[in-house]
Amino acid sequence: MTSTARTRRDARLLVACEDRPGIVAAASGFLAARGANLLGASQHTTDPEGGTFFMRMAFRLPDGPDAPDEGALRAAFEAEVARPFGMQARLVVDPHPQRTAILASKADHALLELLWRWRNGELDADVRVVISNHDALRDVVAAFGVPFVHLPIDGGDKAAQEARLQERLAADDVELVVLARYMQILSPAFVARWPHRIVNIHHSFLPAFVGAAPYRQAYERGVKLIGATAHYVTEDLDQGPIIAQDVARVSHRESVRDLVRIGKEVERTVLARAVDAHLADAILVHGNKTVVFDA
Amino acid sequence: MTSTARTRRDARLLVACEDRPGIVAAASGFLAARGANLLGASQHTTDPEGGTFFMRMAFRLPDGPDAPDEGALRAAFEAEVARPFGMQARLVVDPHPQRTAILASKADHALLELLWRWRNGELDADVRVVISNHDALRDVVAAFGVPFVHLPIDGGDKAAQEARLQERLAADDVELVVLARYMQILSPAFVARWPHRIVNIHHSFLPAFVGAAPYRQAYERGVKLIGATAHYVTEDLDQGPIIAQDVARVSHRESVRDLVRIGKEVERTVLARAVDAHLADAILVHGNKTVVFDA
Amino acid sequence: MTSTARTRRDARLLVACEDRPGIVAAASGFLAARGANLLGASQHTTDPEGGTFFMRMAFRLPDGPDAPDEGALRAAFEAEVARPFGMQARLVVDPHPQRTAILASKADHALLELLWRWRNGELDADVRVVISNHDALRDVVAAFGVPFVHLPIDGGDKAAQEARLQERLAADDVELVVLARYMQILSPAFVARWPHRIVNIHHSFLPAFVGAAPYRQAYERGVKLIGATAHYVTEDLDQGPIIAQDVARVSHRESVRDLVRIGKEVERTVLARAVDAHLADAILVHGNKTVVFDA
Amino acid sequence: MTSTARTRRDARLLVACEDRPGIVAAASGFLAARGANLLGASQHTTDPEGGTFFMRMAFRLPDGPDAPDEGALRAAFEAEVARPFGMQARLVVDPHPQRTAILASKADHALLELLWRWRNGELDADVRVVISNHDALRDVVAAFGVPFVHLPIDGGDKAAQEARLQERLAADDVELVVLARYMQILSPAFVARWPHRIVNIHHSFLPAFVGAAPYRQAYERGVKLIGATAHYVTEDLDQGPIIAQDVARVSHRESVRDLVRIGKEVERTVLARAVDAHLADAILVHGNKTVVFDA
Repeated sequence: MTSTARTRRDARLLVACEDRPGIVAAASGFLAARGANLLGASQHTTDPEGGTFFMRMAFRLPDGPDAPDEGALRAAFEAEVARPFGMQARLVVDPHPQRTAILASKADHALLELLWRWRNGELDADVRVVISNHDALRDVVAAFGVPFVHLPIDGGDKAAQEARLQERLAADDVELVVLARYMQILSPAFVARWPHRIVNIHHSFLPAFVGAAPYRQAYERGVKLIGATAHYVTEDLDQGPIIAQDVARVSHRESVRDLVRIGKEVERTVLARAVDAHLADAILVHGNKTVVFDA
Repeated sequence: MTSTARTRRDARLLVACEDRPGIVAAASGFLAARGANLLGASQHTTDPEGGTFFMRMAFRLPDGPDAPDEGALRAAFEAEVARPFGMQARLVVDPHPQRTAILASKADHALLELLWRWRNGELDADVRVVISNHDALRDVVAAFGVPFVHLPIDGGDKAAQEARLQERLAADDVELVVLARYMQILSPAFVARWPHRIVNIHHSFLPAFVGAAPYRQAYERGVKLIGATAHYVTEDLDQGPIIAQDVARVSHRESVRDLVRIGKEVERTVLARAVDAHLADAILVHGNKTVVFDA
Repeated sequence: MTSTARTRRDARLLVACEDRPGIVAAASGFLAARGANLLGASQHTTDPEGGTFFMRMAFRLPDGPDAPDEGALRAAFEAEVARPFGMQARLVVDPHPQRTAILASKADHALLELLWRWRNGELDADVRVVISNHDALRDVVAAFGVPFVHLPIDGGDKAAQEARLQERLAADDVELVVLARYMQILSPAFVARWPHRIVNIHHSFLPAFVGAAPYRQAYERGVKLIGATAHYVTEDLDQGPIIAQDVARVSHRESVRDLVRIGKEVERTVLARAVDAHLADAILVHGNKTVVFDA
Repeated sequence: MTSTARTRRDARLLVACEDRPGIVAAASGFLAARGANLLGASQHTTDPEGGTFFMRMAFRLPDGPDAPDEGALRAAFEAEVARPFGMQARLVVDPHPQRTAILASKADHALLELLWRWRNGELDADVRVVISNHDALRDVVAAFGVPFVHLPIDGGDKAAQEARLQERLAADDVELVVLARYMQILSPAFVARWPHRIVNIHHSFLPAFVGAAPYRQAYERGVKLIGATAHYVTEDLDQGPIIAQDVARVSHRESVRDLVRIGKEVERTVLARAVDAHLADAILVHGNKTVVFDA
């Protein structure tokens, strides 16, 4: 073994447990004992006296012939720290880009933003496939060298299409599904298979303007800001845990069509940020809310 | 009277009518014929073919012994322009600071913002009185030299209190009522007396979180932005025409108490901007929406 | 030809002159006499008593066999309105998408934003060519069906490359040149040929951090916001009239590399807005400043 | 003493040292061993391999007859953690509101914002005195029950006035000096006495528009955003470590006077945030830059 062989492996630890003294000490002590070098850490507690405690630690582990593998490390952490504190813990060594499917319909803006960032190395994903119920974006996707799959809803049979969708996701061993303005409501059964693994962009500042045609609703109400909301998809339409939101200023001058155009800018940025946070293991879900750490 | 007496009088014209060619030409021609110097003008049409047209013109009129008074000018405008175009028009010469009452409860932030801007000459109002259902802000208001009136709701008799409120507003010949976190719901009869003359600040980004405790609602929903909305009060609670809105970024770290604190900043700025626009005759109401011109 | 054939032509009028009473009346009277239907109008004066007055009017003209052509209309406006008021006026009937060249180097973000908006019908341009001193973006541009021209700086001979650039712009009869992170300084002679027709994006909030490596400068100074500035190119580097600016929040956590990534979002949005305003004839330059009207 | 008497004491730990493995483990282990309950923690490293590491921990210590006092705790931390890691550490138990002097001139906006927040319990300061070189704000300050001291610059003798200023600050045992638009340049000798203890608000987005009349500079340059910067005062005018910045959107419509008015909103918010962060021991200075943790 040469002296240059001492590289380091990136790793992340995510933790949720009932808050009580000693959690950070136990986790950081465990890591320090293995020579880990902390890159960043964030903690959050809903209440220091009996609330829920959340933590994300990013660190580098020494590498070399004697370095423990991920499985051994996880087992040790489970025994020494997680079990005594009653933690739900996730320890990821050498995180791989998550296998991701992007679902779109006809609009290209949110999809393109993700593909651009991905091509520029700004989204740590392994984009396996883009799936759409329309064929309109085939060429757009092809330019990025990503497979495009057209899954039309034949004869209105949404269940059949969803089954094929599920098959394709399984075939690609997908870990994350991103709805980049997919415009189809997924069935509860489908959603239940992907808990906190489907990220959607809703084109309003939720909980304002749930449901269809939010820009028209916003226009009718005469709001002075329009927004977009990225959230995890749950059974309840537009009610899942919110990951990211942003707004843009509008006025009486803008038509519905203008709101749609302005809203696109907000939608794509908000969705990209949410997906980025998910890919960096920076999100913990707590009830119907998220803790989004700086990654 | 000396020859240097040729000063100029500020004036404003507000117009709403069915859109058709020639409106601007007619109005600006009328003013040009009287030597008016345009300071600023804004137009808006909901549709150039048969929609509604809105316009605000700010200008200066020549003064002197032969200058027409406001009444004569209005009559001439009515005959020459407004009637032929079927306009609703408002012509104000030498606009005076509107007689204003501010209603508050216990919280001081929105009230103080208004009083501070007013004292600094940034709000063109004649603040006649501050009225509260509590006595908590007496000293705060006294420091600004503004009369403070305590109108408690004795024995839960809201109607009686509202009657005294109305009396006081009448006694001061009030033109504008500002609800600076007044926290009381005004009766439909009261509201009907003040059409588009009551400005309220609601502590959420409407239409999200109508009703009580919006910051708690926002906390429970886990939104990533909180907001405030200034609107005209109508019979329908939190449903009146929106004048101004803004938001502030929050995260999982903030408690309800933090949201309240952060929200105050947004509330007071948004209310002050809305009141400023109203005082400058820069707002036209169209259905349940506003046209807010740059003043 | 049937009576329903009465279509309308879009047109725009831009005016700058010494401020005095009657300008709006004269211009709107001229248009009303020709049956024009005002779509929007904006005015600005640096001082109503002797300052400079700026105006943009967008309108629709009646069409048909008797409708005057653009030349006749311009001549009439010149004689009846522009000359009497000493105006610099520009009257455009049936505005065509301006022939545009985009210059880039290796970075694709600003270029892609423009091409994407253009493909979506959000930029009213006729993008004739993308020109780069590097060959890196050839495929990216090809996907949009726009000609890509590689003009390398051979042997450091910038003058020769600039001559070929000018030839190509002339061959395409280009009206607008957009520097989408072109990274080359254009010669004063070149710039002089394109007064207020070259739009650049500078990756800082000017006048902070002029010159090279502004993100590194921003990092070193420890600013809490980074920005981008779109401006017309003049002889003086980074000193031309500013068209649009925006910022993004950063903190001690961000490295220079992070600032570059975050800054891209701001750069592309700001550049796109500036180009959009230019294409809509919504910008008037006054000294070293711009008047940017709502289009 | 009953068993219910077990209250807890708030405490904060701030640390800066060369980065290496084990720092968080050592510090959190020290605290856990004393039963501390972590409220929040933030870390930052300029480079995990040999950079500088910064940390802030907020926690609660058990109280009771056997609880160590602040001195004993500091000595133990110094011996067990700080010295082995070569840390600069600050440990504060039962943090008191810092004794604060606010210096102002004639403008009241930044001063009032601080006093309002302080009266509302939003600034954890002990505001001992407001000092001004003018007498204009005496009544404003009196309304808050805070002593006002008028220290005019008699006959232009700034040194004499500064000596009296220093005397007064010493008499009040002041810990923090806030320049709320004080408009006087403090001497290097004075500044040297208050390292990272003088917070100033500069009315521009530094480093743009250093020096005098920044709003006029901004107007002349035609920027589309104006800003404000709160920073620690150092010998070099407008060059100290930046704590907080924000901006507001402006356009060609605004006069210098408008910029001043709009800028006030930004100035007072930015200054208040910076002072709040300082009072919460949330700022660490590193070279000429700050690390500002979420408090």
